[in-house]
Amino acid sequence: MDTNKKAIKMHREWNGKLETIAKSPVKSREDLSIAYTPGVAAPCRIIAENKEEAYNYTMKANTVAVVSDGSAVLGLGNIGPYAAMPVMEGKCVLFKEFGNVNAVPICLDTQDTEEIIATVKNIAPAFGGINLEDISAPRCFEIEERLKEMLDIPVFHDDQHGTAIVVLAGIINGLKVTGKKKEDCQVVVNGAGSAGVAITRLLLTYGFKHLMMCDREGIIGKDYPNLNWMQKKMTEVTNLENRKGTLTDALKGADIFVGVSAPNIVTADMVASMNKDAILFAMANPVPEIMPDVAKAAGARIVGTGRSDFPNQVNNVVAFPGIFKGALEGRATQITEEMKLAAAQAIADLVPDDELSDEFIMPEAFDPRVAQVVSEAVKSHIVK
Amino acid sequence: MDTNKKAIKMHREWNGKLETIAKSPVKSREDLSIAYTPGVAAPCRIIAENKEEAYNYTMKANTVAVVSDGSAVLGLGNIGPYAAMPVMEGKCVLFKEFGNVNAVPICLDTQDTEEIIATVKNIAPAFGGINLEDISAPRCFEIEERLKEMLDIPVFHDDQHGTAIVVLAGIINGLKVTGKKKEDCQVVVNGAGSAGVAITRLLLTYGFKHLMMCDREGIIGKDYPNLNWMQKKMTEVTNLENRKGTLTDALKGADIFVGVSAPNIVTADMVASMNKDAILFAMANPVPEIMPDVAKAAGARIVGTGRSDFPNQVNNVVAFPGIFKGALEGRATQITEEMKLAAAQAIADLVPDDELSDEFIMPEAFDPRVAQVVSEAVKSHIVK
Repeated sequence: MDTNKKAIKMHREWNGKLETIAKSPVKSREDLSIAYTPGVAAPCRIIAENKEEAYNYTMKANTVAVVSDGSAVLGLGNIGPYAAMPVMEGKCVLFKEFGNVNAVPICLDTQDTEEIIATVKNIAPAFGGINLEDISAPRCFEIEERLKEMLDIPVFHDDQHGTAIVVLAGIINGLKVTGKKKEDCQVVVNGAGSAGVAITRLLLTYGFKHLMMCDREGIIGKDYPNLNWMQKKMTEVTNLENRKGTLTDALKGADIFVGVSAPNIVTADMVASMNKDAILFAMANPVPEIMPDVAKAAGARIVGTGRSDFPNQVNNVVAFPGIFKGALEGRATQITEEMKLAAAQAIADLVPDDELSDEFIMPEAFDPRVAQVVSEAVKSHIVK
Repeated sequence: MDTNKKAIKMHREWNGKLETIAKSPVKSREDLSIAYTPGVAAPCRIIAENKEEAYNYTMKANTVAVVSDGSAVLGLGNIGPYAAMPVMEGKCVLFKEFGNVNAVPICLDTQDTEEIIATVKNIAPAFGGINLEDISAPRCFEIEERLKEMLDIPVFHDDQHGTAIVVLAGIINGLKVTGKKKEDCQVVVNGAGSAGVAITRLLLTYGFKHLMMCDREGIIGKDYPNLNWMQKKMTEVTNLENRKGTLTDALKGADIFVGVSAPNIVTADMVASMNKDAILFAMANPVPEIMPDVAKAAGARIVGTGRSDFPNQVNNVVAFPGIFKGALEGRATQITEEMKLAAAQAIADLVPDDELSDEFIMPEAFDPRVAQVVSEAVKSHIVK
């Protein structure tokens, strides 16, 4: 049976992939009097005096809301909140299975920015963190920024930052393998949606100096048509020489290509025009911007994709469970740039130097150390 | 250790009473490709074509949101959303333990009626039902009514209807034991908040003809001061003779007293002034309107309270898990009066005629048949 058929069969059998359970059963009147009335009033009173105590007495301590409006789901686009549910439930399953973090899918019956912000703000008390998911750009930028300002719990748009952290981890190891220096590298990020913007911003924070973003019309610069406010902001920190041209032009002499765009838009010739020891992350799903064997044959040294059937898979599951685990355990009020960089470095460091190679720059998704190592890195970079 | 101390200790150890778990573990790349990408896209596509399929492929099928703004929590009052969390988590635990229904606590950072309505409407897609909890009157009436109109899933304010259903169950059996007829009974409901109003309405629906509501100023009628809109509405269907006076006056010659009010406000003399074979539900917590032994000594035949250490406990846990179980299994779009009456009758019928007595008119909370029987009764009264 192929994956699609099997997924349909299993989802139907499961009838929901996630369930809620009591940590301790309620089998007697005494159990009931402690977990519920009258005993429950005692912890309520403690929290009423100091709401921080909610972290000691309730599931807020270790529970994330996975929030989506279903406007930009996987490769499926704007399928709405009901159809987004299997993805959000799946994400919640991964939070628990990989990070031992409780997670609840919240699929919103609105795609209005103000309503989304108000709704998430209103449901925040029960949660220790908010994972935004599959919300289309540029709304996702404003929603995240405004919620970060309003809330005292971490707000993290995984399509942006999870992806950026894992790409940075791969690039850190790619630099190590190739001996390239970040200050000297020419980086091209193709695709100026949520992931492309976040990757570019994190690479700048990490210390890359020469970045260009491209989108459908080619290299993004001050004269690029119809930029949204966030893309406009990006023109202030990328393509400082204000180069113009196509993706083909951009890739000439580039060291690193990061694609979060569309299938098969990078040709062998384009790869051949890149610098020696080129590093490519071709993450369009399920068909990458260029197939790894084609890129390699054209001279690329390292190729990563979003797929598990090729080496160097860029998989957010190595990041988000550990990031929230660390943020929750450390009671972080937000996830800062320092925490993101620390997470990327921790992921990269999981590949030992003597195993590092062109084909192995990323830890395995199922490496049992990942969430623990990432959470510790994140936790140690919380500033209170 | 007393219950309060034990509850504090246990809540701290549990650090949240509820957790989310995967129904099926994710231990391999294949598991991941089915529960998450790329396989998850297949059920998403099915739901995108027909959102009703969400009931077949997602946890919406069997998951309730337990929503509170923390404005009227237990006997604690307006303690806000953080301090309300232990109660809402506890409620979620009971949903699962008694009814095998998944439940998620949603504690709202707003007490504004419009914001609550908008927020619940916006989060509804992930849930198969909404259990409103501990929201103060009269806002709870409007919030529930408006949400019932807007949403295609059941919305049920348990403080109102759960309580009313269980009280009605007790009264059904009380009538059987005493041989009283509902048409002839004089009923006094003391306390005109959410529970008092809902109890009165359900008793009217059941067929009681002579009801009076009382509150702090005595018998509620058209001239009672400062009635809210719902209480005003109640004056059109209760106290049709427009009697005036105190609770003491109201109880003279009454057959049934239902108290959802305050400790120790009913005296032995007041009970003695009631009709023969009087039935009392004195549900103020933890100290009832009159202690059962005092009421009995004064001539009452049947006394129920909210407490588990006296006979005839009125405990919502015999109602809400089964009601939502039945509503979800039958994919009800709302919980109608017929469903509520059927639930009350099913609860009452669990006490066999040959065991029915003054001291045993209610099934035990831990009677394992309760949720199943209630859910079947509810399910068989769904009108599509």
